[in-house]
Formats: sequence, structure tokens, C-alpha cells
Amino acid sequence: MKFIKTPPKGMPEQLPQDMEIREYCLNKIKQTYKKFGFNLIKTPYIEHIENLTSKQGGENEQLIFKILKRGEKLENAQNSADLCDFGLRYDLTLPLSRFYANNAENLLYPFKALQVDSVFRADRPQKGRFREFTQCDIDILGESSSLAEIELINATTTMLVELGLTNLTVRINDRNILKALALACGFGEDKLDLVYIILDKLDKIGISGVKEELLQLNLNKDSVEKYLKNFENINPEMLSCEFVDQSVKEYLKDGVLENLDNIINTSKHLLNQKVKIMFDPTLVRGMGYYTGTIFEISLSGYNLSVAGGGRYDKMIGNFTGKDVPACGFSIGFERIIDYIKENNLLPKSQVKKVALLIDKNLNSNEIENVIKKANELRNNGQIVLVSYKNKNLKFQKEKLLGLGYEILEN
Amino acid sequence: MKFIKTPPKGMPEQLPQDMEIREYCLNKIKQTYKKFGFNLIKTPYIEHIENLTSKQGGENEQLIFKILKRGEKLENAQNSADLCDFGLRYDLTLPLSRFYANNAENLLYPFKALQVDSVFRADRPQKGRFREFTQCDIDILGESSSLAEIELINATTTMLVELGLTNLTVRINDRNILKALALACGFGEDKLDLVYIILDKLDKIGISGVKEELLQLNLNKDSVEKYLKNFENINPEMLSCEFVDQSVKEYLKDGVLENLDNIINTSKHLLNQKVKIMFDPTLVRGMGYYTGTIFEISLSGYNLSVAGGGRYDKMIGNFTGKDVPACGFSIGFERIIDYIKENNLLPKSQVKKVALLIDKNLNSNEIENVIKKANELRNNGQIVLVSYKNKNLKFQKEKLLGLGYEILEN
Repeated sequence: MKFIKTPPKGMPEQLPQDMEIREYCLNKIKQTYKKFGFNLIKTPYIEHIENLTSKQGGENEQLIFKILKRGEKLENAQNSADLCDFGLRYDLTLPLSRFYANNAENLLYPFKALQVDSVFRADRPQKGRFREFTQCDIDILGESSSLAEIELINATTTMLVELGLTNLTVRINDRNILKALALACGFGEDKLDLVYIILDKLDKIGISGVKEELLQLNLNKDSVEKYLKNFENINPEMLSCEFVDQSVKEYLKDGVLENLDNIINTSKHLLNQKVKIMFDPTLVRGMGYYTGTIFEISLSGYNLSVAGGGRYDKMIGNFTGKDVPACGFSIGFERIIDYIKENNLLPKSQVKKVALLIDKNLNSNEIENVIKKANELRNNGQIVLVSYKNKNLKFQKEKLLGLGYEILEN
Repeated sequence: MKFIKTPPKGMPEQLPQDMEIREYCLNKIKQTYKKFGFNLIKTPYIEHIENLTSKQGGENEQLIFKILKRGEKLENAQNSADLCDFGLRYDLTLPLSRFYANNAENLLYPFKALQVDSVFRADRPQKGRFREFTQCDIDILGESSSLAEIELINATTTMLVELGLTNLTVRINDRNILKALALACGFGEDKLDLVYIILDKLDKIGISGVKEELLQLNLNKDSVEKYLKNFENINPEMLSCEFVDQSVKEYLKDGVLENLDNIINTSKHLLNQKVKIMFDPTLVRGMGYYTGTIFEISLSGYNLSVAGGGRYDKMIGNFTGKDVPACGFSIGFERIIDYIKENNLLPKSQVKKVALLIDKNLNSNEIENVIKKANELRNNGQIVLVSYKNKNLKFQKEKLLGLGYEILEN
């Protein structure tokens, strides 16, 4: 029999000191979002394989952990689809859409959902990329106006500031603008997804790198140059109405630009001083299910995206046959935890910790009295450990002191 | 494409009102156990299939959700073992043992662990039996003396009383006594597990039912009668030393009875008035990995077990080759939630909830002012919803009032 001591690769364990940071952040997140009227809900980790492979998740659908049917005869199966009925969810948005479709009549309309829970991706494990990790999403279902985006940005930036993050920049774009810019340059509809993937690398490979890759798609050189001219002089104060010219507007539905600029203008007046908001026509975000606005929050100086989201008005309709407007924001929980660790943003606990160390030769009456004393201190809110003295008492004491315990010997 | 609206069977979704109760209980549980020096840790939901099928989990090993290997060719597989490398954990004890084996050097010794998290069992779904559910365990690793049992019982009963449960009875036994009683009646070692399974049904089928089933095992009739005589007059005040006679003591290691009676006597002096503790020689508990004391807490009047545990000194040694004494207590989280729901034990929230309802024809400046007002109230700790007036305003208001919102129209 072979027992394996280490956890599966890419699936981190959390030690007590890790959990303290996670719990602190989780509580702050829940408390803050709750004040904005978001309701904690929970959906199963296990999801129907049919839903997971329904082309809602883009590339994530390649990364599903599939669960073997129980009691199925292997020899009867033609392929892995015959063998699996369930899988582990790769995000919280698909399960939320299913949840909403299933429970709408018991929920407020619009419904503000908060989820903090684990998702799973059978990715190649590497530093900072996990196969089991926590996501934290807020979503507003049933609100088609920009009130949804404004409140999502309002809530998420407030929460990040509460956690001690500063110098935040919200960047916002609309998938319709992304599309109109490309179409106005004469790119074919069939090339759009590839164009977006390349544009998304702008911050890594620069304008010249993007140009090179676009030309490899056999796009017209003049079109590519016209397209890239758009992105040469992005100004943080710019609004989409000023940015998009008449030739592009022809490819846009009415109201897209005004909606976006309204979100930016209103947010500017609402947001904390530590937060900037700007229109960013180069913002792409994994395309999957987004149908309108897309947004991201990054930590200036760190070039680190800590939250992202957008509008996905077509997903719930897949379950019910009737579309429900939907818009969500997901924070990069694991990244934020790392940032808080690295920058020592965890406030020092004010709770007193006491270790009552018992001598091996105490009788049961004496031990009882030690525990009674412990219970009294616990009643007063203190953290109390009752433990025998180890053989290596010096080492035991050092470790306890290192963890902030006051030591009382008995 | 077929989308499925309902969650997989036996895997409950939690609506906002369910989550409120769960969060209340989770916070109470964590706060209380923390004061007893237990440390929250987290292990992955996904576990190595080798560990899950290592004969530690008893019947639960029949209930593993197995995860298909990625990129594996179906035609190369001889059986399901070839196809799966991972599975979903069926409890928190096996992962804890692996965790401890992997991290002992970074932990206090003894180590007090607290886990609250989901486990998975591919069981036949039925009322009150889930396939995905929350377990809540505390364990003390590295403490061989009865201090472990005393502190586990002390902590768990304190926590249950904090949650508002009353009339609790702790029943305690020792697997060594269970074995000695059976051996002293001449039952063969090979029959013991079957005898325990039958004895475990005592509260359902009574002494006569147990007798009938034992006789079906082809056990000697005199032996069966002698065995059952033990259980005819169980007295809640009885200690194990008084119960076990000389013929049984011959089958017992030194100190087993004294250890058990010490736990009972000490606990009697420590426990809340709402809690009783008694020796119960009929207590069996799913046999699996237990090596010594076993215990259970039931709600008197409800005949409902709300917590159970015991000592499992041999499990960690499977991973490391060196045994580490271990003892744990698991509460029936889902049952407790149900009990708290049914008995309305959730205290009324003191936080004020306000809904600011916006008229459809407000302009963006006016909406901005409503959100500013909302943010002020949120800063003061209130829960504030900003929402447009629905077409059916009356219905919207009724629903909000029903959820405790004060309504302000704008």
C-alpha cells in the first residue's frame, strides 16, 4: 500500500498562519459586500458535465476535471463522454447562472449575489497558477442599466481599499467598441477573436509586437496600421465618445458610448481618492461570454490585475430560454492574499493568547483545575492552549512565544 | 445543446436565507474553537486516489467520486483504476493525517486542528443524506493522554451550548472494551466486526432484535445470552470500572478503564449544566480507523447524534512510518443547521437594512446623489440596496419589506 504525503500538485494546503490571512480577508470581503446589498449564496463544486461543456467557458472548458460515473462498465464506453456525468466547476459564473435559472422566483429582482468559493482547473501547475483555488465574485442579475456597472465598481473598489490596497486603477471598455474598431478597419468577422487575442498581449509585446502578429494573420497592411493608430496615444482622461470617430460609430449600436462614459463620469465622483477610472480601448479580457462592458482593476506600480469582470447578458437565457441581463466582478483572491502577505497588511490581532503548560506529574485533580482556569480565560475571550510540557521544553516554549503566546507553567 | 437547471441530485444549493444561518453557525464554531487553541487549516478537496482507497475509510471508500486522468487514452485502460489518479475526499480525517505527515515540522506539537469544509460521497441521495456536504472537525494530534479527549469534549460541548443547543448527552466508550466484552463471551476475532454492526442497531431493533441477528451468525446461544446480559441494565451513573468484571478485564490492556473513568469524572466537573456525560458500553461508531476511546453527543429528546469522534492512533503512521497519537471530534454540521432552522435559534440581526428605490426617469446626476447617500449609510454599517423601481412596484416593496428592508423612494 502506497500512501502519498504531499497534496496533488497545484492544490495548495493552507497552514494556520495562511488561514489567518485568508480568514481576515474573507471576513472583510463578506462584510463590505454585504453592506452593498450582496447576498452570499453557495452552489455545488460538482456540476453537470453538459453545463460545463456548453461552450460558455472558452478555454477553461479544456481544463475540466471530469468525474467518472459510478458503477459504469468500462467496456461499454466508446469515449470519455460516456464515462463521465459530472465535472468540477472551473468558475463561479456558470453555476451562478444555473442557480439563478433554478431559483429566480425565490430571489429579489434584481438579485445581487456574492460567492466566495473554490474552483478547479486541470491546468499545468506553475508558480502562482493553481489547479484548485478560491474565487470571489459579485454579480448583479436583472439590471440592464449602467447602475449595475457603477455599483459593482463602487463595491469592489471600496472593498479593495478596505483591505489596504492603494493606487488602484479601474480600466473599462466595451466589447462592442472592440468589435467596431476592428470592423471599421476592414477585419473580417472570422478574424476578430484572433485579433483580440493578439491585442490582449499589448502590454507584453508592445505595439510593434502586436503589429507583427497581426500581419501574420494575413490582414491587409494598411488596415493593420489604421487599427494600431487607435492605440498609440491613449490618454487616461479620454472618454470613449472622444476616442471613437464617425467611421467607427457606424458599427456601434446607439448608446454604447454614452453608457460607458456615464459609468466613468459617475464613478469618478463616487470613488475613493485612491482609485482612478479610465477608458481603455485596448482592454480585451478572455472573450468567452461577455456581451458588453468589460472592466479590470490593476494595482499601479505592480502592473497586476486584481479584479476583472463584465456584462454577460446571454448566459442565463441558455438555461431558461429567456435572457436576463447580468454583470459581474471577480477579484483575484489568491493574488490579493499574496499581496497582503508580501506587504504585511494583516493587522496585528488584539486577542490575548495564553499557553498553560502542565507538568507530567500533575494528578487528575490538578489538571482539572488548570482546565477550569483555561475555561475562565476562554470565557473572557482569550485563546488558551492547555498542553503538557514536552520533553524539549525549551523548543516548545520558543515556538509558543514565536506564535505570540504568553506561557504559564503549572 | 442541453442545459440543466437543477443542481446534481444530493448536492444542495444554499439560498441567501440558508447562507445566513450557515454563516452564523460557522462564525460561532470558529470563534469558540479558536478560544480553545484550535487552528483553522485547509486541505484540497481533491486527494490522491491511492490515499482514498487505502482502507482507512471503511464503507466510505465505496462512495468515492473518482476523477478521470487528463489526456488518457481510453483504449489503453484495463479498468477504472487505470483511468483515475484523483478522487474527491469522503471525509476530513484522512486529508488531515496526510497534511500532518507533510507539515509536522511547521506545526506546534501537539497540534490542534480545526477544519470546516465540504466532503463528497457518491451515496444514494435521500432526505437528510447529501452527496456534497459540510463537515466540521477538531483534532488533537500528538497527545496520547486523556487530556486530548477531555479538551475535545470540553470544546465541543461549549460550542454546541453557544449555538443554543441544550439537553446534550455525551456517551463514551472504548473500542478495547467493546472487543474485550465480545472476546470474553467466546466470540471469535473474525466475527467481531459483524457483532459490532449488529450491536450498533440496538436503539433501533432492541435487545431481542440484536439477539436474533447475533444468533444468525451461528454464535453459541449461551455466549450470545451472556453477551447481551451486559447491556440489559445500563445506568447513566455507571463507570466502566464498575461495569466490567474480572473475566472481561483479562482481555483488556492496563489502564483502559481508568483512562475512560478519568475522562468521565473530570468532564463531569468541567461541563456546562446543560450537558451530561456517561459511559455507554453499547456505543460502537463506524469502526474504520478508531483504536481507543469513541464518543458521541446526542440531543436528548431528539435521539439525534450531533457529534461523534474517537481516537485513531495508527493513521498518521501510514504516511510516515511513525505512529502519532490522534483524537478527533466531528460535529454533524448539516444536522445542526437543520435543528437551528427548525427551532428558530438564529438571533435576529441588529443591522439596519435600507432599500433606496430609484425612479426610472432620474438623470445620472440624481442617481449619483442616491448612490452617494447609499455610500454614507454603508459607511455607518448599514446594508443598503440601490435599485430601480420595478414595473410591479407593489410586489417589489412587499418582497423587500418581507426581507426586513426599510424602503426609501427617490
